[in-house]
Amino acid sequence: MAKVKKQPRPKALPPKGFRDYFGEDVRARKSMLDAIAAVYHQYGFEALESAAVETVEALGKFLPDVDRPNEGVFAWQEDDGKENGDWLALRYDLTAPLARVFAQHRNDLPTPYRRFAMGPVWRNEKPGPGRFRQFYQCDADTVGSASMAADAEICAMLADTLETVGIPRGDYVIRVNNRKVLNGVLEVAKISDDQRDAVLRTIDKFDKVGESGIIELLGKGRLDASGAYIDGVGLNSSQIQNCVSFLTVKKSMAGLASYASAKTTADHLASPELVNGIVVDELRKLVGGSPIGQQGVDELESIASLLQAQGYGPDRIIIDPSVVRGLGYYTGPVYEAELTFEILDEKGRKRQFGSVAGGGRYDDLVKRFTGQEVPATGVSIGVDRLLAALEAKGRGAAKTAGPVVVTVMDRDRMADYQIMVAELRKAGIRAEVYLGNPKNFGNQLKYADKRASPVAVIEGGNEHESGVVQIKDLILGAKIAENATLEEWKSLPSQYEVPRSDLVAKVREILALHEAD
Amino acid sequence: MAKVKKQPRPKALPPKGFRDYFGEDVRARKSMLDAIAAVYHQYGFEALESAAVETVEALGKFLPDVDRPNEGVFAWQEDDGKENGDWLALRYDLTAPLARVFAQHRNDLPTPYRRFAMGPVWRNEKPGPGRFRQFYQCDADTVGSASMAADAEICAMLADTLETVGIPRGDYVIRVNNRKVLNGVLEVAKISDDQRDAVLRTIDKFDKVGESGIIELLGKGRLDASGAYIDGVGLNSSQIQNCVSFLTVKKSMAGLASYASAKTTADHLASPELVNGIVVDELRKLVGGSPIGQQGVDELESIASLLQAQGYGPDRIIIDPSVVRGLGYYTGPVYEAELTFEILDEKGRKRQFGSVAGGGRYDDLVKRFTGQEVPATGVSIGVDRLLAALEAKGRGAAKTAGPVVVTVMDRDRMADYQIMVAELRKAGIRAEVYLGNPKNFGNQLKYADKRASPVAVIEGGNEHESGVVQIKDLILGAKIAENATLEEWKSLPSQYEVPRSDLVAKVREILALHEAD
Repeated sequence: MAKVKKQPRPKALPPKGFRDYFGEDVRARKSMLDAIAAVYHQYGFEALESAAVETVEALGKFLPDVDRPNEGVFAWQEDDGKENGDWLALRYDLTAPLARVFAQHRNDLPTPYRRFAMGPVWRNEKPGPGRFRQFYQCDADTVGSASMAADAEICAMLADTLETVGIPRGDYVIRVNNRKVLNGVLEVAKISDDQRDAVLRTIDKFDKVGESGIIELLGKGRLDASGAYIDGVGLNSSQIQNCVSFLTVKKSMAGLASYASAKTTADHLASPELVNGIVVDELRKLVGGSPIGQQGVDELESIASLLQAQGYGPDRIIIDPSVVRGLGYYTGPVYEAELTFEILDEKGRKRQFGSVAGGGRYDDLVKRFTGQEVPATGVSIGVDRLLAALEAKGRGAAKTAGPVVVTVMDRDRMADYQIMVAELRKAGIRAEVYLGNPKNFGNQLKYADKRASPVAVIEGGNEHESGVVQIKDLILGAKIAENATLEEWKSLPSQYEVPRSDLVAKVREILALHEAD
Repeated sequence: MAKVKKQPRPKALPPKGFRDYFGEDVRARKSMLDAIAAVYHQYGFEALESAAVETVEALGKFLPDVDRPNEGVFAWQEDDGKENGDWLALRYDLTAPLARVFAQHRNDLPTPYRRFAMGPVWRNEKPGPGRFRQFYQCDADTVGSASMAADAEICAMLADTLETVGIPRGDYVIRVNNRKVLNGVLEVAKISDDQRDAVLRTIDKFDKVGESGIIELLGKGRLDASGAYIDGVGLNSSQIQNCVSFLTVKKSMAGLASYASAKTTADHLASPELVNGIVVDELRKLVGGSPIGQQGVDELESIASLLQAQGYGPDRIIIDPSVVRGLGYYTGPVYEAELTFEILDEKGRKRQFGSVAGGGRYDDLVKRFTGQEVPATGVSIGVDRLLAALEAKGRGAAKTAGPVVVTVMDRDRMADYQIMVAELRKAGIRAEVYLGNPKNFGNQLKYADKRASPVAVIEGGNEHESGVVQIKDLILGAKIAENATLEEWKSLPSQYEVPRSDLVAKVREILALHEAD
């Protein structure tokens, strides 16, 4: 057999836009996923885990970026030997797989079907700073219920979830709108079917470009910050006026904006239930004679009053007409959870943290498979963004201590050292033997330092003969090294000699001391 | 814009070889992963989560099926607009990504680096019954330690893990071998480099085809069960003899086999540490003057004695020369966890459950990236197989109860019903409102049945006026419906009327009753 040609070494890098998560980051995400799952489960939702891979035909073309309906996914063709295999793709969200699962198993599943799902999704998009092509979502959906109570429940659960993971009331707001209201406004404004999607996408940019930007983009277009000219949708001025009044309903009412930021004054608190009521009344005027628009307003009113009855007032959940949500498949209520506190962006400017979850009602998604309309509504939490938010607020998960490290003084007595760690573990203490080359003892202590070990155990030949072990309190040691005067250093020993039989007790004592810190 | 041509409906099916997991199955796997992670963590291992996608060059060609080194993965080319993009692929195991991660981050990671990882891996293989193209692995590896103590630790941890997830001692055995011993035997048998891989692959089939099968396959070949002729490796009879004596070392010693099946007699228990010692002595004879073979035997001896010192005797971990492990990258010790109890196969025949975990030492895997040899050893648990094993033994996770269902008697009082479930949830009770069309009350009870609900709550107009609710014990109700005589049926009411304010207390009482069942 001919020798294989020598290959250049592979690069030790993940593909562009992918990253690795280590130790504490994995733990923090897992602990958040567990907390979210507990709330979802408590609300009666059942876990579902579908595969990462779906057929392209089952996924459909519902990616947020409707300018490129064929792109945005990682897809490949099955090799069936005849260039005729199915096209498969990595899921880009957890909703499209749910629609497929429900269509497939609808005779066996309870209806309504409340399900939650969590896991990575993949987008074949241009990566950027902090923008990855694999990220976690954590979804809850109710399939088979047309009741607004289903939407209200998801909004209430979302509020509970945010508080459970550590976002206090006042630091978030859930904004609710309804696509039917939007459609009503578009109807009143006599916007053609062809222009509809473009108008929706433009409205979705309201938060970014503001009122004047929206007016330009709905009309002739505008120069963006980079100097490029963005074509406008080409509406006339009365059409533009219709859309803008709608978007600014909330803003036009004095004091309402302050609700969102939770810096609520006593005046507003006197009658919080009025706030969402006022917005609903204004919207009703704007959709005028449009039946679909009126229906949308009725639905919003119903959601607001169900939530109000359960105590979820506008300090937590508000009706907000500027919420559009990019996805083309929403058919009724849409909702979005926004964190209202300010963080510093990469350029050091203050800005609101923004959206961490969103969803809505999509009554047509299952119909693609079955031909029958199946009402459904649900939310997706962007877990990685939510983790970043907690991190930014200094509310990240507490760091866990590293393991106790038993050092190796005598390579031939490895079995003795392993017996020590086995004893420690049996006592519930995380512990390990140093497994590198034991020759240089300094390296062992450097290793313990890198592991954030609270305690190192040392048993050389002399100790072994005398039946004792040295136990080094590394946390105290580090503190002393950093701060202590010579006097303190002498009076605060950080290393103890104890009988071998007291190993576990002494280690436990030191750990307990630092837990109380 | 032209109307889009009407597409046929997509099929509501996952791609071939992929499947969905619902409710209890998701929960059972999660609870196993949590249990395994807790053991790994206790041993000092740190979590790592890399992305599902790697570059093909980083993954390398280490798939088990060395006959098709280019196949077996799901791969696609990045679209860089010039047909020149990187080839990406879904990871086929968690070891290849670890090698990439360690090579990339080696200056920041502690060395030795103990890491664990869990998650799905993907194989582009022909699916079959019970054989899926996405499945979970749960790995622990120590990178940067050449010490046999690292291998011994992994074997001990594997034993602890199996017992933690519910496989009692006696129902599993961890079999340990060493590639260097194999290489020594091949050297003694004067097997050429070209034949080496074919011989290893053949030896790996020992469990399946037995001694006579191996003799044929190492020689001229054999007819398999389907009547197809399998080419042999073409060794001469003395070469074959060398290999077969090696494979049957364990078998040739009276009583040793019984250790593996844990039906150990008192005779053997008298000196359990001898068992692995005898195998080691026999192996030392077989590798004769081969230095690599002798080194392999020394390593096995070292592992066995470290484990014996910690109390892991041959009732749990045995030296077994017939373990090969398919992957080409192993360079030293290899190990495999086998469940020794019998189950019925799909044809109703008894067979041993077989392997649920395996691993070994791979000192060259990081070297691919860095040019420097980095010793490493680790194990991978096949989580789905282990779950199936527990299921087969009736030791699966306990089923959790469904939610309490509050039924909807009066659609206009949805808010009242939602307040009830909110109260129940606040008391820690899983609860939900029925969200389907409430018209047909029977459907609501059918729904509660499908959800395995323990309790249904009913509050119609009359109840509402009287300030009471009806609470239906569905578990008792089902028992009564199934078994009770008329007398019992009368004396065991399964529905209670209580004041609305006692809702939570009564539901809690009923749930407590059934928990005690």
